[in-house]
Amino acid sequence: MALLVLMPDRDATDLVAALRNAQSDVDLRVWPECGDVADVKFAVSWNHPHGELLRFPNLEVVSSFGAAVDHFLDDPSYPAGVVTVRVVDPDLERDMAEYVLCAILAHRRHWTWYHDRKKEAQWKPRSYTRSGTVLVLGLGRLGVATARLLASMGMEVIGWSRASKELPGVRCIVGRAELHGALPYADVVVCMLPLTPDTAGILDAEVFARFRRGAYLVSVGRGRHLVESDLLDALADGRLSGACLDVFATEPLPSDHPFWDHPAITITPHVASLTNPASVAEQIADNYRRMSSGEELLNRVDLGRGY
Amino acid sequence: MALLVLMPDRDATDLVAALRNAQSDVDLRVWPECGDVADVKFAVSWNHPHGELLRFPNLEVVSSFGAAVDHFLDDPSYPAGVVTVRVVDPDLERDMAEYVLCAILAHRRHWTWYHDRKKEAQWKPRSYTRSGTVLVLGLGRLGVATARLLASMGMEVIGWSRASKELPGVRCIVGRAELHGALPYADVVVCMLPLTPDTAGILDAEVFARFRRGAYLVSVGRGRHLVESDLLDALADGRLSGACLDVFATEPLPSDHPFWDHPAITITPHVASLTNPASVAEQIADNYRRMSSGEELLNRVDLGRGY
Repeated sequence: MALLVLMPDRDATDLVAALRNAQSDVDLRVWPECGDVADVKFAVSWNHPHGELLRFPNLEVVSSFGAAVDHFLDDPSYPAGVVTVRVVDPDLERDMAEYVLCAILAHRRHWTWYHDRKKEAQWKPRSYTRSGTVLVLGLGRLGVATARLLASMGMEVIGWSRASKELPGVRCIVGRAELHGALPYADVVVCMLPLTPDTAGILDAEVFARFRRGAYLVSVGRGRHLVESDLLDALADGRLSGACLDVFATEPLPSDHPFWDHPAITITPHVASLTNPASVAEQIADNYRRMSSGEELLNRVDLGRGY
Repeated sequence: MALLVLMPDRDATDLVAALRNAQSDVDLRVWPECGDVADVKFAVSWNHPHGELLRFPNLEVVSSFGAAVDHFLDDPSYPAGVVTVRVVDPDLERDMAEYVLCAILAHRRHWTWYHDRKKEAQWKPRSYTRSGTVLVLGLGRLGVATARLLASMGMEVIGWSRASKELPGVRCIVGRAELHGALPYADVVVCMLPLTPDTAGILDAEVFARFRRGAYLVSVGRGRHLVESDLLDALADGRLSGACLDVFATEPLPSDHPFWDHPAITITPHVASLTNPASVAEQIADNYRRMSSGEELLNRVDLGRGY
């Protein structure tokens, strides 16, 4: 019985060390060195090559190395019979909230603009804006943590979610009509929605037309929330002053994509919150033990619902 | 009787509008259009040309357009007989604290590094560090506001000041020995000291030698706290991983200065906290009225003490 680590685009060194630390006797294989494929019953996967999981005839459990499971949903040959779980790094909410705060402060304080001036040895003080209402789209765990942090900073925060919520310091709204009513008041709009048929393409021309003129977009949910050509149009006509994007419909973002060259777009390569191997190795080892002893697994995912 | 606005390197438009709003009947002159110099009894100054204040024989009050008065101390021909005041923008503490937070988060999250990768259309995820102890040097009003904000973010904060302080969530220390003891524990050191004979040149090779290896420096007090060549040496040998500097011994920073080209140094042009004209126009108008009616002025500065 073996545990396979299958993360082609990440360095697995830290995870392997943390798993050995959490459970020293596990038979650990690191893709592509899989040994006898019949041994593998548990796989930790992140962006595995489509079809690859079918090579393991005795695979019982697949664990995402993160909260996201899009990479499983995207694989048309994802094995139907396996139990799917994920890991929940308790610090991811904090990381996400800090990323959003960093994006907002760096925008207000012209951080990358000064970086460009530095290359020209140009001393060019600019004023900055203080006030600001932030509209957070999506009040899941990450959205709640972010709304709370921004409110604790003294910002006015509006939170939009499908089901009604109550959060101290946050004005919570629901439904399309209330969203449309709130958009003109937001200096910053942060998209932290889950990706569902209702939310795919939600950041489109119709929604941008309701933004306050010169508002700023921070997109950290999923790339497919955004209609990319509509963003370019909204930037071109000044409706939006800029955007900070961490997620994209196609990742890695293709090198010929127009976002790369756009001066008002900040791009980070899906790093707003990254699972820390040391934080989650114990959860993976625990689920491996549970599988071995026939117990219920933790953090199971229903791929039919998408989360 | 006239009020002169004397700010050669700033756009005075917003201040003039705010002053007219605060006191519509004031005889307002905007340098270099001073009219009859004998009329000017009150000057609002920021970086005035040395000697310029001597042109006004009836000058009674000079107000700094900010909390700093270095630009007065630097002028050997600053008129001895005037009353010197400054303005206190109540939001400057908040601005400073947010700048320092922005500098720390942008450093941790590789913000300018990703900006450079964007220009190359390069998708290069990097991990980030979560934990971190921040040592704040100087617990004046700005230092206290900053230490409080960082502590509220969950960071471990140590605060160093001349006189003993108590701040919830901040470990307060005093004296050189305690500073030396704390330096090896700090991932980030923030200099927010006043400039005095005791603190000039405090950021030198001896202090850098006690930094934790790879620590980050944020310097927002005064440029002369820093021994510039010692910083370059400490960066070269890896003692410091980088520095974010907002203040410099000579401002504007000369275009041939080695800091501009240094990849590990972030430079902003003294913008960590900028007086907002709308926030302080009422204070200036109030002191102008007080001068006119012979009352005690507010926010007087003792230039002998330097603050």
